[in-house]
Amino acid sequence: MNNSTPQIFFVMGVSGVGKTTVGKLLAQQLRIPFFDGDDFHSESNIQKMASGQPLNDDDRAEWLKSLNDLANQHVQKSGCVIACSSLKEKYRTLLEDGLNNAVNRIFLKGSFELISERLKNRKGHYMPTNLLQSQFDILEEPDQALTYKIENSPKTIVEMIAQNLETQAEFGLIGLGVMGKSLCRNIASKGVKISMFNRHVPEKEENIAYNFKKQHVELQNSLVFDQLHKFVASLKRPRKIFLMVNAGPAIDTVIEKLIPLLSKEDIIIDGGNSHFKDTAKREGLLSNHGIFFIGCGVSGGEEGALKGPSIMPGGDKKAYEIIKPYLEKIAAKDKNAKACCTYIGKSGSGHFTKMVHNGIEYAEMQLLAELYQIFKANGKNPDEIALIFSSIEADAQSYLLEITIDILRKKENNDWLIHKILDKAGNKGTGNWTTITSAQLGVPSTLISGALFARFLSAYKDERVQVQEILPSKLNAFDINENIILEAYQLARIVNHIQGFKLLKQASETYKWSLNLSEITRIWTNGCIIRSEFMEKLVDMLKNENDLILHVDTVSSIKKLKPALTQVVAKCIDSNISVPCLSEAINYLNGISQADSPANLIQAQRDYFGAHTYQRVDDKSGNFHHTDWLN
Amino acid sequence: MNNSTPQIFFVMGVSGVGKTTVGKLLAQQLRIPFFDGDDFHSESNIQKMASGQPLNDDDRAEWLKSLNDLANQHVQKSGCVIACSSLKEKYRTLLEDGLNNAVNRIFLKGSFELISERLKNRKGHYMPTNLLQSQFDILEEPDQALTYKIENSPKTIVEMIAQNLETQAEFGLIGLGVMGKSLCRNIASKGVKISMFNRHVPEKEENIAYNFKKQHVELQNSLVFDQLHKFVASLKRPRKIFLMVNAGPAIDTVIEKLIPLLSKEDIIIDGGNSHFKDTAKREGLLSNHGIFFIGCGVSGGEEGALKGPSIMPGGDKKAYEIIKPYLEKIAAKDKNAKACCTYIGKSGSGHFTKMVHNGIEYAEMQLLAELYQIFKANGKNPDEIALIFSSIEADAQSYLLEITIDILRKKENNDWLIHKILDKAGNKGTGNWTTITSAQLGVPSTLISGALFARFLSAYKDERVQVQEILPSKLNAFDINENIILEAYQLARIVNHIQGFKLLKQASETYKWSLNLSEITRIWTNGCIIRSEFMEKLVDMLKNENDLILHVDTVSSIKKLKPALTQVVAKCIDSNISVPCLSEAINYLNGISQADSPANLIQAQRDYFGAHTYQRVDDKSGNFHHTDWLN
Repeated sequence: MNNSTPQIFFVMGVSGVGKTTVGKLLAQQLRIPFFDGDDFHSESNIQKMASGQPLNDDDRAEWLKSLNDLANQHVQKSGCVIACSSLKEKYRTLLEDGLNNAVNRIFLKGSFELISERLKNRKGHYMPTNLLQSQFDILEEPDQALTYKIENSPKTIVEMIAQNLETQAEFGLIGLGVMGKSLCRNIASKGVKISMFNRHVPEKEENIAYNFKKQHVELQNSLVFDQLHKFVASLKRPRKIFLMVNAGPAIDTVIEKLIPLLSKEDIIIDGGNSHFKDTAKREGLLSNHGIFFIGCGVSGGEEGALKGPSIMPGGDKKAYEIIKPYLEKIAAKDKNAKACCTYIGKSGSGHFTKMVHNGIEYAEMQLLAELYQIFKANGKNPDEIALIFSSIEADAQSYLLEITIDILRKKENNDWLIHKILDKAGNKGTGNWTTITSAQLGVPSTLISGALFARFLSAYKDERVQVQEILPSKLNAFDINENIILEAYQLARIVNHIQGFKLLKQASETYKWSLNLSEITRIWTNGCIIRSEFMEKLVDMLKNENDLILHVDTVSSIKKLKPALTQVVAKCIDSNISVPCLSEAINYLNGISQADSPANLIQAQRDYFGAHTYQRVDDKSGNFHHTDWLN
Repeated sequence: MNNSTPQIFFVMGVSGVGKTTVGKLLAQQLRIPFFDGDDFHSESNIQKMASGQPLNDDDRAEWLKSLNDLANQHVQKSGCVIACSSLKEKYRTLLEDGLNNAVNRIFLKGSFELISERLKNRKGHYMPTNLLQSQFDILEEPDQALTYKIENSPKTIVEMIAQNLETQAEFGLIGLGVMGKSLCRNIASKGVKISMFNRHVPEKEENIAYNFKKQHVELQNSLVFDQLHKFVASLKRPRKIFLMVNAGPAIDTVIEKLIPLLSKEDIIIDGGNSHFKDTAKREGLLSNHGIFFIGCGVSGGEEGALKGPSIMPGGDKKAYEIIKPYLEKIAAKDKNAKACCTYIGKSGSGHFTKMVHNGIEYAEMQLLAELYQIFKANGKNPDEIALIFSSIEADAQSYLLEITIDILRKKENNDWLIHKILDKAGNKGTGNWTTITSAQLGVPSTLISGALFARFLSAYKDERVQVQEILPSKLNAFDINENIILEAYQLARIVNHIQGFKLLKQASETYKWSLNLSEITRIWTNGCIIRSEFMEKLVDMLKNENDLILHVDTVSSIKKLKPALTQVVAKCIDSNISVPCLSEAINYLNGISQADSPANLIQAQRDYFGAHTYQRVDDKSGNFHHTDWLN
């Protein structure tokens, strides 16, 4: 019974049900004080009851207030057990005021016959038996209570309570897809008792949690459910529930079902790729119910989720502090053994950060695809390309590079598997969202959008086949040293990261999130898909300079590598090889390093046809001017 | 009194107010039949009234129904005048059922004293004077009525009515900004009587409409307002109101204020650059009130709006038919003298089409800016660049090219004005939306997004100055014939249009709009900002082939011009000149003409880290496969 916060146990039920006996035994077992609620009645209440009159609600309000004060005092100490009939929900509301997740309801249940028989045999009690019926009349059995039948002996009941408390899980997870399963195993392997829930869909999803538990030894202590109310009841309070269901309406459906089952200060953690604006809305909705909502980016794919992902939680800081020990346990560790998990900021900032992570990932993947295409056009087979990539593997320490090498080497029936894979790339939301958000925030994330549009173009397979037939366009080989191509790749990656952090910085300003960019790179140094040695360098670089392109190391990299990028892109264009992301990189560098852009012409055009006005280089006031261009 | 549809005039007011006299006179003047409502009472109603009992609502319902039938018969013919007390709004609702915008309420108003005096002197009428008070008790004075005091003689009243009808305007316009003013002058110059409204904002916007009218002789017959209810009352029905207010919440504010003032079948036309999804929502909201909403793209800038814009209306077809004659009058004319206005499709399709127009415009402008930059880097001054552009002016017939030549030649104090304009480009929504919508619809509109991001980058003026200091990057001259550069420009424009029409085509499929792409190009051949000789060619090309890149003319252009585009982009990259849109064009062509893209690697990566699965080239079933990449 290692509940982290002191607990208050209210033993409830009608008179004669055995509240005092059970309560005393429970307090003894838990080594906390016991109080009989009846001892806190005012003199007038006692007289009223003794005279056979039932108490009215006014009589009770003062009494319940004094019990609530008692509970609030003891929750500051070791907790306590209080016996109190608490027959109506409104009494329980008064009783539990301010106690929030420290409340445990124990409801003792018996039939009128059994209890009236017991009361007749009881001596020295001021409760006349004829008042029992009035208690049954007003009784509203409590929700969210551990309920025990009084046919069991008090000793047995206390054993059952103890066992129930013992068996509650510290953490819950809903949704046993690829990522959800891996996270469950990760959590369980850290010695955290977990309750796992997956919905029951006849003939499609049956006994998912149960079967999953059987497959993995680390889950032997976990609890499995396909009924949501039982799952919720199995969780220690404040409940901590990880949602790993599909982003979108499915999240809202689950939240809707959870709300009536949860208590104040419970915490829902959305570990999927939800849109950051949806996360902000859901946080608002749940806060109306006193429930916390953490929008939590989780990166690492199946393997990362299992062995340690990078975790980006955003939302209420106080709620984060409660789940922090768990998240840090399951997260990957950086080179200093610190967890790859940090509080990102309020509202949807965690999911925003994950979205940008995925945007950067899109461009990193596309750059590797472009290099693969270049080497292929130059006559290399996948093994040869893998060999070229492996020449920088040790220095780059890049997860995506490593898996690309594995992929290129993978054989099937004496051919490379890569040759069997259809070249239509899928996309699942976050890449689109990053491009959309860039357009909304006014940030030129050209590599991310270039990668997205390259995927769209790949999906036009039929059209590409048709066009090639009528417009044959041979990919020409070209004579550039492989190291130059790898240097071009290296610089394009730098530009990709420059743009990604520019987007984070802009969002931080627009939404007032105070993002710590260096901390974000730190939690991206391990566990996540875009981890690399370069990310490791960024941790320090972003400590001193949050406009990455101005950092002395960036400047020296650009100086060193730009000739390679220039040469490679020019050659690719000459050779009919489509390299959208490499091109974006060089165009961005050429654009950002020109103090004078040709946008003065655009401003003139806008003023010409739409009277949009323009600013002047010789008017530092920033005033807007209009010209009558035809006169 | 040339109202297009036959009108029904209900002459209303309490007994003794003079309905019959005024009604008969009015009918005579309008040469339409007159009916006295009282003649249609049932026998039992007449007896009841004669016995001094007031009629109850049941008594009236049948009577009102018969009058409504009468009106509905006559609205099919020449219209008519009906005298009927119609004291309560609910009676008027019964009376006007199904008549919609054919209804005209004439309310005759007098004091109890004056009317009872008149009734006492009247003979042979079955209405006892003592019933008059009961009529005043239940009287709800009608909204939206032409109201006249009975102190005036019946003849005077009829003259006033006639004059009022004569003076009503055919068209209304709200919002006298740059575009609104030009449209008003355009409409008025076509002999259409217009009512103009601009809000009154003390010390900021005062007497805008009044002062505007005074400045232009063509507006001498127009009506001016800064009170909305008077503006609405000044319009013939069905009212046709052009909104030319800022896109966004301002539109909703105006709509909210208009709703209670409008009648069924009135038509609001939003001529601003509203988002097509907002337009669909507003159409839905207004249809609940029986009011039509046309989301209407208008292109042409200030000059086009004045002399004839390209007009892209979307919404209810029936409502479009009513405003069509007006829109066609004010629209530009194509080479066959047909109006550059066509029904685009339902819902937000008009605004969507305008959005894509603006997206194409963004890229067209950026391409010109890139050429300007290239020629500048090659040492040409603005006059020399204008001269180069003018070499293709006659063939290109491009409005944007023409104004660019004007701009480049514009001098101020012996220097070129272009040199004085700050190179930070603004953006106003539609460019962002086109990029966002492309990302949502899965269409690679890379030139449009490239142009948008180039504007964003131009806005980073301070950073560009800083970066140039630490990373000086000289724009190198290069030796390519100017005609080759112009050929590259020509092909990039083709790619821009290919992508723009791909986006329209995808939207048409996704939203089931059945867009006629050829008609859309036809209305873009004049009046709008992106009109050009190439647009003229597209009218025919899109008649036969709606996948533009497969058209034989496109194929031959690509074959002819691609070497130029390749050469120019490669040279620009070599010379440190940022040419995002030219680069997008060549990368798109290289990408779309490769049957095999490197996206198979991306699919393999996704399957590796996220178990996203992939399709195989050797499995035509389209099934998805997963590989355990590490074993």
